Amino acid sequence: MSGSIRPSEDDLIARFFRPLATAAGALGLVDDCAELAAPPGHDLVLKTDAVAAGVHFFAEDDWAMVARKALRVNLSDLAAKGATPVGYLLTLALPADWREADLARFAAGLGEDQAAHAVTLFGGDTIRSPDGLIVSIAIVGFVPTGRMVRRAAARAGDRLYVSGTLGDAALGLVARTDPARAAGWGLDASERAHLTRRYLLPEPRLALAPAVLAHARAAMDISDGLGLDLARMCRGSGVTAEVGLADLPLSDAAARALAADPGLIETVTGGGDDYEILAAVAPESAGAFEAAATHAGVRVTAIGVVTAAEAAVGEGGESSTTPRFVDRDGRSRPSAAVGFRHF
Amino acid sequence: MSGSIRPSEDDLIARFFRPLATAAGALGLVDDCAELAAPPGHDLVLKTDAVAAGVHFFAEDDWAMVARKALRVNLSDLAAKGATPVGYLLTLALPADWREADLARFAAGLGEDQAAHAVTLFGGDTIRSPDGLIVSIAIVGFVPTGRMVRRAAARAGDRLYVSGTLGDAALGLVARTDPARAAGWGLDASERAHLTRRYLLPEPRLALAPAVLAHARAAMDISDGLGLDLARMCRGSGVTAEVGLADLPLSDAAARALAADPGLIETVTGGGDDYEILAAVAPESAGAFEAAATHAGVRVTAIGVVTAAEAAVGEGGESSTTPRFVDRDGRSRPSAAVGFRHF
Repeated sequence: MSGSIRPSEDDLIARFFRPLATAAGALGLVDDCAELAAPPGHDLVLKTDAVAAGVHFFAEDDWAMVARKALRVNLSDLAAKGATPVGYLLTLALPADWREADLARFAAGLGEDQAAHAVTLFGGDTIRSPDGLIVSIAIVGFVPTGRMVRRAAARAGDRLYVSGTLGDAALGLVARTDPARAAGWGLDASERAHLTRRYLLPEPRLALAPAVLAHARAAMDISDGLGLDLARMCRGSGVTAEVGLADLPLSDAAARALAADPGLIETVTGGGDDYEILAAVAPESAGAFEAAATHAGVRVTAIGVVTAAEAAVGEGGESSTTPRFVDRDGRSRPSAAVGFRHF
Repeated sequence: MSGSIRPSEDDLIARFFRPLATAAGALGLVDDCAELAAPPGHDLVLKTDAVAAGVHFFAEDDWAMVARKALRVNLSDLAAKGATPVGYLLTLALPADWREADLARFAAGLGEDQAAHAVTLFGGDTIRSPDGLIVSIAIVGFVPTGRMVRRAAARAGDRLYVSGTLGDAALGLVARTDPARAAGWGLDASERAHLTRRYLLPEPRLALAPAVLAHARAAMDISDGLGLDLARMCRGSGVTAEVGLADLPLSDAAARALAADPGLIETVTGGGDDYEILAAVAPESAGAFEAAATHAGVRVTAIGVVTAAEAAVGEGGESSTTPRFVDRDGRSRPSAAVGFRHF
């Protein structure tokens, strides 16, 4: 339980992390704690999400990308709540064979994404991991008092929207772990690169947060796949939903892969790692939401509707809130509601 | 990267963690994020600290104690800042062989300490650990605006105080890992149990937080040993300090061990895991600080003084802020300034 001939944790903090602690209240990480003024008329929004080697990324991945993914999956949650992120705490569990070059890449990745998303490091802890790298981030944001957009607030009649495109990351993971299967999709190099990049580097939809805050009745980010996450929204809200599989927004790469291998639709709905926003919007707010999204430069697509739970008593012991996925021929595909479980 | 036949993360949350999320803004952990009102006239205080099997506890330890230690080490930081804790985010990396009985113990331990310290769970994330259990907690507290007690604010002339007793946890760890050595200390069963318990279960000095807030110029909690942590306070403050080794507060068990094995003084100053508060108090505030500590029922002991950095140009390349530990015969013991490094 004692150290090796390594830079001390204090040295690591000074070299790699102090430059990321740009807020006055972070005190240059010289203190144990950070002090942060809460803006009047606002609530805090709190979230933590962790990524681990072999689960959320590959042990050989560039640590800059790992750092950026770890930060972005947390930013994505805040975006879906309509919140403005301000900063984060970082817990880093380093494998025994970590190299300073890797840590420098890690800090560089964080620095790049901090600057892009206007957040700062408030503090952290560095420990030894028993095996691979684990990164846990706890993020803090603000919303006007009482205005955090909830997950469990959808109502029958609401329209369901998703941002961006679905399934790219999950297909990128398939392409990486099963290249022989992916070879049959007929993708060109840039399409393959698109899918791979979407797995490595989610795009938190912070630009959409004001539209979500102003117009969404309920929202969440899609991290475990549309099927599972929509089921969570429905269960929490006491409603169900009907989604058109043909309406799901796909990238050109994903569309081409699905054309070649239609069974991949379950990867799209269940594969996870989308980090897009799922929003339930009252019909009377739909026009304003779409306009605000356009103004923000974020694509949103209507994919279905929220319906009353009573209308969906399922077969085979399904909960009456389990959403239905309907294909082009009107057939219900409840199996698509089983999402990816990281755990 | 897919799951096994295990309860889903949603089930785990519902069974073990929802009962811990007692604040309205935690939304019963049904949402991805928690919403927390910031009290007017207060700043947030933020901190994260992680514990890992094989580093901060033993793999065979009761998970209830692990949970309580993970929470307490964070509470300890807030106490040293004069802050009032309100709640925390939890990241749990579970080893592949985790058992539900362990997790139930974990939740029970958290629940017990939550209630004792008036904090609540705001959210969390559960992932697979590559090997042993890792627990990261990010804690949130409040202080009156601008009033967080800093580490790097000590001034020459300040008196140095510590709460409780030092070295118990480090001696408890020695007793556990080297029972043959500990057998020579001549402790009775209750003294051995005291040391062991102090390693497993730190006592966050939240009762002392108001006294620290009102009267301390600088403060921090001692987690890596008095030597290293006081050196950090001095370096950050641009001062140095002189501490009397004979003045360090010891439990009866620690005093008996040291009488038998005087070399253990370096375990006391360098072993870490004390989670006591180190405070620098202006001389004119010392009486009020002591009275407030007495009122709070927390023992505090004056251990030395802060002095000007210029007076302490060391030998052998030491920084001029490295504190000096002086033994009963007036000999300086700079080596005691090297603390335990968890990392």
